[in-house]
Amino acid sequence: MVEVFVTPEAVRRFDALLGGAAGPTVTLVDDRAMASLTEAVTPAGLVAVCRLLDRPLEHVVPGSRLVALCAEVRDPGNAGTIVRTTDAAGGDAVVLAGDAVDLHNPKTLRASAGSAFHVPVAVEPDPVRAVEAARAAGLTVLAADGAGELDLAELEDAAREAARGGSDGSDGALLARPTAWLLGNEAHGLDDALAALADHRVRIPIHGRAESLNLASAATLCLYASATAQRRR
Amino acid sequence: MVEVFVTPEAVRRFDALLGGAAGPTVTLVDDRAMASLTEAVTPAGLVAVCRLLDRPLEHVVPGSRLVALCAEVRDPGNAGTIVRTTDAAGGDAVVLAGDAVDLHNPKTLRASAGSAFHVPVAVEPDPVRAVEAARAAGLTVLAADGAGELDLAELEDAAREAARGGSDGSDGALLARPTAWLLGNEAHGLDDALAALADHRVRIPIHGRAESLNLASAATLCLYASATAQRRR
Repeated sequence: MVEVFVTPEAVRRFDALLGGAAGPTVTLVDDRAMASLTEAVTPAGLVAVCRLLDRPLEHVVPGSRLVALCAEVRDPGNAGTIVRTTDAAGGDAVVLAGDAVDLHNPKTLRASAGSAFHVPVAVEPDPVRAVEAARAAGLTVLAADGAGELDLAELEDAAREAARGGSDGSDGALLARPTAWLLGNEAHGLDDALAALADHRVRIPIHGRAESLNLASAATLCLYASATAQRRR
Repeated sequence: MVEVFVTPEAVRRFDALLGGAAGPTVTLVDDRAMASLTEAVTPAGLVAVCRLLDRPLEHVVPGSRLVALCAEVRDPGNAGTIVRTTDAAGGDAVVLAGDAVDLHNPKTLRASAGSAFHVPVAVEPDPVRAVEAARAAGLTVLAADGAGELDLAELEDAAREAARGGSDGSDGALLARPTAWLLGNEAHGLDDALAALADHRVRIPIHGRAESLNLASAATLCLYASATAQRRR
């Protein structure tokens, strides 16, 4: 944070956040000025000027054990929600690859609910380069793909079985490995060529008549399945 | 569907949908008329007039095995996504209880991606009445609650253990029971008094620094955990 603008009313509410001698410059503004500083219909009364958040791929992927690698995510709500979910699942990084929505879009940041400041996010225009960087960092790349050859629920059963020593099959260990989940565009899914670059393609079982899950919902199931399996060992 | 308006260009694309002598009245309109019929920036070229979708609680809950019971859901994207996820998880119904967003809000319907036409949705102004109806229908009511006394990942482990005959504990059977998941408001969570009415309160483990998950993401994990456990038996 570089600088903070806050209304007198909000100063009281955010007192704990604003304390500290080494904090940013704080400027009091009235409600009218606040309204012009934010797009929100009901402003929280505090606006912060921050440095840009995105980091280079090379600073973010190496050393990670759980990464959300989004290719061509376009909806700011989805992108922000995936950052929030990656944080909640204890993931290490998010990569916004290809022609993706701007991380600094106000809707993306709001949907991340603060997690854009917790989880490092890299922006990489070339999705192939992002997949190669993940593999070079020792991550298994799993593509979330409705037509995938592996079933997520079966992988979760196998991971539990492996953890209790009931199996030494490679599938049992799969979800517990350091993993990058490769997620596609909300309308078109993953490009076939990109999905083919993944180590495996994993489908989420659809039990009803929906064609698919919302992108952020699918990401939630994938990331939590890995988080649970990784923590069990 | 009562009546359909479609542009000449879209007639070709949606030919299979529009066929059939017993279908609704179809009226051709030009692009300008289409633009005035929809809020979408990029209209699909087809607008249908439909009967209202919501049904009475008594027609929807009895006989169900998996229900999403949303109390005070306000964001149309969340409500629609929960309808879509309930459908994908093979759930039987959604209840929008309390002061909830309108099921017929265009954003709710778009976020449901068609599932509002697959899954029966009830609207019930009184959340207490909705919980009582679920319990009267023999459903176990599980509240998704960050401060819950049960842990979702542990319940999933217990359900797997119970399914392989390794345990006869009651927790093992819990997720496999016919269930209504009680979900709260996106900003304030569940009202304490309402959460207390549930049979159990279940927390989703948060491994990182996020305070919570997005409502629709939390619903996805809960509904899929039940769907998997119910189908395993």
